[in-house]
Amino acid sequence: QQEAADTSKKVSAHYGSKGFEFKTADDKFLLQVQSRLQFRFSTPEDQDPVTFDDFTGITKPAFRINRARLKVGGHAFKPWLKYYWEYELSQSNLLNYTIMIEKWDWLKFQVGQFKVEYTRERRISSGEQTMVDRSVINREFTLDRQQGAEIYGRLKGKGIADFNYWAGVFTGTGRGSTTNDDNHLMYFSRLQWNFTGRYLDFEGSDLEIHKEPAGVLAVSGVTNQSPYTRFSQAGGGYLEGYEDGKPGQYRVTQANIETALMYKGFSWQSEFHWKEIIDKLNNDHTDNLHGYYIQAGYFFHEALHWWPKPLELAVRNAGYNPNREADQTKKRETSVAANWFFNGHKNKLTAETSYFNYDKTGGIPAHQWRFRLQWDISL
Amino acid sequence: QQEAADTSKKVSAHYGSKGFEFKTADDKFLLQVQSRLQFRFSTPEDQDPVTFDDFTGITKPAFRINRARLKVGGHAFKPWLKYYWEYELSQSNLLNYTIMIEKWDWLKFQVGQFKVEYTRERRISSGEQTMVDRSVINREFTLDRQQGAEIYGRLKGKGIADFNYWAGVFTGTGRGSTTNDDNHLMYFSRLQWNFTGRYLDFEGSDLEIHKEPAGVLAVSGVTNQSPYTRFSQAGGGYLEGYEDGKPGQYRVTQANIETALMYKGFSWQSEFHWKEIIDKLNNDHTDNLHGYYIQAGYFFHEALHWWPKPLELAVRNAGYNPNREADQTKKRETSVAANWFFNGHKNKLTAETSYFNYDKTGGIPAHQWRFRLQWDISL
Amino acid sequence: QQEAADTSKKVSAHYGSKGFEFKTADDKFLLQVQSRLQFRFSTPEDQDPVTFDDFTGITKPAFRINRARLKVGGHAFKPWLKYYWEYELSQSNLLNYTIMIEKWDWLKFQVGQFKVEYTRERRISSGEQTMVDRSVINREFTLDRQQGAEIYGRLKGKGIADFNYWAGVFTGTGRGSTTNDDNHLMYFSRLQWNFTGRYLDFEGSDLEIHKEPAGVLAVSGVTNQSPYTRFSQAGGGYLEGYEDGKPGQYRVTQANIETALMYKGFSWQSEFHWKEIIDKLNNDHTDNLHGYYIQAGYFFHEALHWWPKPLELAVRNAGYNPNREADQTKKRETSVAANWFFNGHKNKLTAETSYFNYDKTGGIPAHQWRFRLQWDISL
Repeated sequence: QQEAADTSKKVSAHYGSKGFEFKTADDKFLLQVQSRLQFRFSTPEDQDPVTFDDFTGITKPAFRINRARLKVGGHAFKPWLKYYWEYELSQSNLLNYTIMIEKWDWLKFQVGQFKVEYTRERRISSGEQTMVDRSVINREFTLDRQQGAEIYGRLKGKGIADFNYWAGVFTGTGRGSTTNDDNHLMYFSRLQWNFTGRYLDFEGSDLEIHKEPAGVLAVSGVTNQSPYTRFSQAGGGYLEGYEDGKPGQYRVTQANIETALMYKGFSWQSEFHWKEIIDKLNNDHTDNLHGYYIQAGYFFHEALHWWPKPLELAVRNAGYNPNREADQTKKRETSVAANWFFNGHKNKLTAETSYFNYDKTGGIPAHQWRFRLQWDISL
Repeated sequence: QQEAADTSKKVSAHYGSKGFEFKTADDKFLLQVQSRLQFRFSTPEDQDPVTFDDFTGITKPAFRINRARLKVGGHAFKPWLKYYWEYELSQSNLLNYTIMIEKWDWLKFQVGQFKVEYTRERRISSGEQTMVDRSVINREFTLDRQQGAEIYGRLKGKGIADFNYWAGVFTGTGRGSTTNDDNHLMYFSRLQWNFTGRYLDFEGSDLEIHKEPAGVLAVSGVTNQSPYTRFSQAGGGYLEGYEDGKPGQYRVTQANIETALMYKGFSWQSEFHWKEIIDKLNNDHTDNLHGYYIQAGYFFHEALHWWPKPLELAVRNAGYNPNREADQTKKRETSVAANWFFNGHKNKLTAETSYFNYDKTGGIPAHQWRFRLQWDISL
Repeated sequence: QQEAADTSKKVSAHYGSKGFEFKTADDKFLLQVQSRLQFRFSTPEDQDPVTFDDFTGITKPAFRINRARLKVGGHAFKPWLKYYWEYELSQSNLLNYTIMIEKWDWLKFQVGQFKVEYTRERRISSGEQTMVDRSVINREFTLDRQQGAEIYGRLKGKGIADFNYWAGVFTGTGRGSTTNDDNHLMYFSRLQWNFTGRYLDFEGSDLEIHKEPAGVLAVSGVTNQSPYTRFSQAGGGYLEGYEDGKPGQYRVTQANIETALMYKGFSWQSEFHWKEIIDKLNNDHTDNLHGYYIQAGYFFHEALHWWPKPLELAVRNAGYNPNREADQTKKRETSVAANWFFNGHKNKLTAETSYFNYDKTGGIPAHQWRFRLQWDISL
């Protein structure tokens, strides 16, 4: 461990879109290092209200570091043998660790812990979102990060015969878990049609100002049996009314229809979700949940000459319908945001106002305004 | 996340006072990386005794890593847009995360989590102290690190018309907390007169051997309402007799008068503290605490030719007077230390002996000797 | 903390066996950075069975990141003033922090937290093992990492008059503990005879293909009084039947006789262990534990021309005999492994099958097969 390296290869250094990078002359080894800080002020509080009770009680305006990430990636031994790991410094969590074999465009392979490409909203890095954070339905439908293996690639034919696919197998117990709960695995697949014949990356806001439209129509599906009914950065968790799951208690099957489009400074994305939860330990009691969001952003400078170039306006509407005995609370969120891009997504300021409207069938509705201001900077 | 950087800028590397550093040719991006290890042997135990009970019981001589820090700083996009984060590896705590806008000397701005400049003793890095660690009164009076925003700068006129100022607003719930407890914030300000017309940095021991005297006279004030009556690296905590505070229970108001001086190898610093704690949930029951320390160090080589150049001797006296019903224990600490600076503060050995004398009014006094040996090295 | 470095030294960068490295032109400062990921699939489960009960119950096939390490080392101020720290990212544990003074070959010194050189099996990095992981007896006999200080060196005379020695004092409370439990320390020593006159490093598999034989015969001893009867990466712990030790409860004395040999692609290693546990709080009740393993690996390409060069086969047999009232379970493990070295230990795939056979004197034996597949890659 202690003696100096024997053989060595000359390394040159650059600064690029992934931070400081160090590369050997033969391009066999690449190391990229970047840190990212996200500061957020919120009032009356930061989190989306989850239940009716969250609308009452003491309001606690928050100023805090929301994210502090150390990102390390590159390749080793071969240019196509890539790696990436990301550590959340403020929570001391290892978020991503992935080895990727990306030798061919049509067939790639990755293994490790990473964000499943189940929803566009979750897959987009928190540093490259259009709004301050994900919508009110992310909590209920995201798979977040999972541990396992995946094949993926792009099948590009002529014109609009242009598809991306993903197929993965995961333990289905979420970030940071060290064993599976039982023998059941999570199976995931996604098929994406790039209907304009151009690939659109997982990234919010049309900062590139696409000259030609780039659009996505995708269908994703997943099934999993585990103790959990939802996932977050903290790992596996529970939706209200499904607390303390036992190993293999819940068979969860989900589907998502997704669209996205970018063109001349305009960006659009939407998701429509269905989720079925079968309680295997309670006579296969079954619930069906639904949710959606639609979101659009625009750099008005493209239409109005006097409009400042770095300023984007965006709007989002989201809804969640639990439609089950234990919880009839319909949730709605409508948000408006303004982004000022000092240096693209690498250094930007976002101001956002949201209106939450929770409706209990036959009950009284609750509503709340929220304001958030966020500075996200990559270093 | 995975593809290689597109545009890039040539980076050169150097080793400087903040470790290895990497800078783009246009000076827009700078990255500095340093780690620091601090080894400590203590007998009969490491911590300052807190109560009478600490003088009895099993003594546990400690050898341990006291600090293991990873420090990352630099600037991004502009030379004046600076950043800094520091991670405590042995505890897995994110200590500092700060973005600074330092375009003008007279008006600077920082946001994040950092050591409030309330006391010189706490603000000085643990790696740049004169003694092994801070005095017995640090526990009661420090604000430690807080989350919020601050303006600061230097107002330099002719001669001794030379001032530094700091004014900040913080959540007042200490390191690592993610929300405020209520709507009350912490307000802090410090005015510092550089009475010799020279700025003195937050650093112990006159290693520079100042040819001209550099002195500081500073007054600081702070007020905060929170569940906490003290702060440490672990976050908000409680002084004895104030356990388990509720949100907004304690209104704490503090003031500190501080001096510091360095001249020809001699260094001096002192603090005088007052702290008022009002218990808002118990009829505004009010306590007043007082404390002080005085400290001096000298490189005797400046006076005695035969004295080894890297050897400094230092002495400190500190006292704490709770003066309240629940706790009448007066505490006194007297310490003597010897520093051997192999490479300034970057590589030094410190031996220290302390005598603690705790006096309960009308009761019997308790006393204890302690010896500590410490190696602090920046890598 | 915030201003730029003043004096600086030109740094050049290379890629070597310890990853990316940065060195000043005067060779006074060296920084080496490497990360390592280890992915493992196991069925029916990953851990060695510990008791009879582990043979029953739900089997949980595991796919997971087994290790994610950040390794930082180099030297500072002098080429012989070395440092090393290693952080486990997936568990957020600081594993190693060490400063080494290695000016002379015959007398070196290190201080900090590191793997005690008590057994070859444990001392070999998890990334440089021949099998997927350590044997079934590692749990009972390893000292793992300890905090303290050590002298060591090599005494090289003519021919086979060639010895290495280690002697250390540790707190004896394992990784991550911050104080000793009482005044008793751990004392360790190891004497190693390099009986072919060549030094053999702590590393598995004869990847170098030694032209001349290199062999080791070593004797180690250790004594410690603490609450613990075993150690692991998690720190101090308990063997079955010794739960919840009090400070200073157990006086543990251990000895190990070790051999190792490498020659023409063949590698051999063995350990024979004795461990005595005296319960100081229960009339000095004394137990004696015994264990052993033998292990061999071979690159058959050295004998068979058609055999693939990167493929090594290896086999291990291990046994544990508690021989005490509370636990009579004899444990046996026999494992066969195949390694494919894409790039030496830096990038390798290992497949392993183990057979466990636990025998309770006078009772029924239990047995289990296990299969593990592992990819270990340094980046």
